[in-house]
Amino acid sequence: MAPHLGQGARRTLRSAALRLDEAHASTDLRERFLLPPGVVYLDGNSLGALPVAVPAALERVVHDEWGRGLITSWNAAGWWEAPTRVGDAVGRLIGAAPGQVVVGDTTTVRLYQALRGAASLRPDARVLVTDPGSFPTDLYVAHGVAAEAGWRVELADPDQMPALLDRLSADGDPVAAVAFSHVDYRTGRLWDLAGLVAAAHRAGALAIADLCHSAGAIPVGLDEAGVDLAVGCSYKYLNGGPGSPAYLYVASRHQSVFVNPIPGWQGHARPFDMAGTYEPADGVARARTGTAPMLSLLTLEAALTAFDGVDVVAVRARSSSLTGFLRRCLELLVPGLDVVSPAADDRRGSQVCVRDQHAYGIVQALVARGVVGDFRAPDIVRLGVAAPYLTHADMLTAAEAYADVLAAGEHLDARFARRSTVT
Amino acid sequence: MAPHLGQGARRTLRSAALRLDEAHASTDLRERFLLPPGVVYLDGNSLGALPVAVPAALERVVHDEWGRGLITSWNAAGWWEAPTRVGDAVGRLIGAAPGQVVVGDTTTVRLYQALRGAASLRPDARVLVTDPGSFPTDLYVAHGVAAEAGWRVELADPDQMPALLDRLSADGDPVAAVAFSHVDYRTGRLWDLAGLVAAAHRAGALAIADLCHSAGAIPVGLDEAGVDLAVGCSYKYLNGGPGSPAYLYVASRHQSVFVNPIPGWQGHARPFDMAGTYEPADGVARARTGTAPMLSLLTLEAALTAFDGVDVVAVRARSSSLTGFLRRCLELLVPGLDVVSPAADDRRGSQVCVRDQHAYGIVQALVARGVVGDFRAPDIVRLGVAAPYLTHADMLTAAEAYADVLAAGEHLDARFARRSTVT
Repeated sequence: MAPHLGQGARRTLRSAALRLDEAHASTDLRERFLLPPGVVYLDGNSLGALPVAVPAALERVVHDEWGRGLITSWNAAGWWEAPTRVGDAVGRLIGAAPGQVVVGDTTTVRLYQALRGAASLRPDARVLVTDPGSFPTDLYVAHGVAAEAGWRVELADPDQMPALLDRLSADGDPVAAVAFSHVDYRTGRLWDLAGLVAAAHRAGALAIADLCHSAGAIPVGLDEAGVDLAVGCSYKYLNGGPGSPAYLYVASRHQSVFVNPIPGWQGHARPFDMAGTYEPADGVARARTGTAPMLSLLTLEAALTAFDGVDVVAVRARSSSLTGFLRRCLELLVPGLDVVSPAADDRRGSQVCVRDQHAYGIVQALVARGVVGDFRAPDIVRLGVAAPYLTHADMLTAAEAYADVLAAGEHLDARFARRSTVT
Repeated sequence: MAPHLGQGARRTLRSAALRLDEAHASTDLRERFLLPPGVVYLDGNSLGALPVAVPAALERVVHDEWGRGLITSWNAAGWWEAPTRVGDAVGRLIGAAPGQVVVGDTTTVRLYQALRGAASLRPDARVLVTDPGSFPTDLYVAHGVAAEAGWRVELADPDQMPALLDRLSADGDPVAAVAFSHVDYRTGRLWDLAGLVAAAHRAGALAIADLCHSAGAIPVGLDEAGVDLAVGCSYKYLNGGPGSPAYLYVASRHQSVFVNPIPGWQGHARPFDMAGTYEPADGVARARTGTAPMLSLLTLEAALTAFDGVDVVAVRARSSSLTGFLRRCLELLVPGLDVVSPAADDRRGSQVCVRDQHAYGIVQALVARGVVGDFRAPDIVRLGVAAPYLTHADMLTAAEAYADVLAAGEHLDARFARRSTVT
């Protein structure tokens, strides 16, 4: 292909992008983020961009609260309550009423707590149902806890789970929990949360959702769907910064019997009694372990203000328009691409993924052109769309770069040969 | 008592303080810390002071690495290796050769991993020996893991542990592990690490040390003592900031068989293969769970540079002199105090504690005078001495304030009546 092929289509699409950006101007929140110039950042689903509010907030935390307030800031600056206070702020974005979300620890630890908690809530069950396409940590923890709890693991794609659950239920095979990701991290497939919860409950099982790839991008509606337990990280669409702490949702109805397998003093009913015997706190605070990483946690709190006055429904509408447009641009400018993210808006998360044996080189060549996506083994080009700071014009720029990379064969360049990478 | 009683003693002690500060001038590192004016900070064993190196380092991480580098910083800025790289930096201060310490998660999680790890290393053992005076989290996790592992918990003060272990060994009662804190968080009693390890090993047990109150203040010598597993927080004498991540030490000889009960993708042998089956990484990296809180972790890395060029032996010599002098000042200015921290330098950690039924009010009245210590239920005034940023003159100032508070009865003031507090 000559590099200038498709110039007419590009002009048409550029006009369309400008019209769409005008139509969606009210949800353009780019001014709330600090992004480097000349980059189209399509990896906000690995690490969200830096919100404008963060640097000043963090400077205040470091200089005033830590440096000058020192130990008194645990009370005076509200550090002690931060895990549940920030939990409530996250809760607003995932449809959880206050008092059900606690922030701290890693997603891996939160998953471990959720699954062990399920074991204590369903002591007589024998099966765990989960998705073989889950993110690796989810699978490792699922298999690990299953071995501890004496569960058999049944694997099924989420769209096959209802049938599997009905069969297990008919067989009298008691299912402890159904654990699944709301959005598939590789394909961007958005699963039917409410349907999966209903199927789990029909089988007497708990529904455990991983929200890593939906929180902040898609209205999750945890309470409305009746989810039992949920976890997620906060460094993707919530923009909390690298490794910002994870969260755990425990539905109110389960809290009084939820057992935290990692009983730390901060989850004690009266932590400052320094009692030798563990007695869990009321509410979701019992899921606290030790001292949360306060600089990372308070950075997340500041980052969440990027959503102030914004409804996630509006973010989702913008995201659907952006990812739909990106899909269209790719299909027009790069005919024959194997786009694995669904075409239907209501089945697509906030990313557009392409399967290609040269995925690694394509991603590297795109990065060299200022279009930052990521590679997911073995063969996925993943273009994540964090709607608040991206435009339809950015989508077209990314698709043009994709077309140009392929046309010029840049993805085959030796510079972009695969090596171990971190994304 | 009249408030001016003891002026002669105070003058004599002030001269002594100045002489001692001159003699110890080479270990005065106060310029490496940002401390508020007019405060004698004796709570560095709850939250260490802000190192000078931190603000600029954190600003660089936020603006350059997160804001501009975005996802590429996982490789380009060395985020991926940070848990073990910072682990090695901590290791230098606790006598651990490189490759045995990993940083991330909370102390509670690290304790859980250590004790569960011990269960996998000693599958046939039936007893866990621990100290009833341990910090609450240690006891909660010990009892929790013991219940999971089917262990009986035997409680003993660390100085009684060797006799207990010898008896259990003689009885043929297999002990999995002996878990103890190097320094008692309430009394400041420093236990005989090498002696406890030797006693544990005689009984065929693993020695698990909690270094929260010794790391950065006392030369721990983990490798030399033959400790098997150790944990600690980094926000006390290591000055990593509020809730900075904890660390786990797994002695090299145990690493290939150490089982991480919380198997996260970052501890996988080939994390970017995104394989569905867990295979632990070589070395201590297998103890990684999920993504560490990078802002908190890199803040710790910057904070540790406050120890650059400093031997912990020198820090300890300064600390012994300071705590010994503080003890002497208190005894001279406040006769009859019940000082519970040992008089012998080699049995005292880096704190001086007083038992008093009015401890809560005394701590509050001292804080009002700019002497910040902390209260430990039910009746302990705890004065922590972070040697790098404190002087003998500070010790005298604190003791004078203590005397003045008692003389004026300030600790009985209604303003200082006990309420729930966080320290």
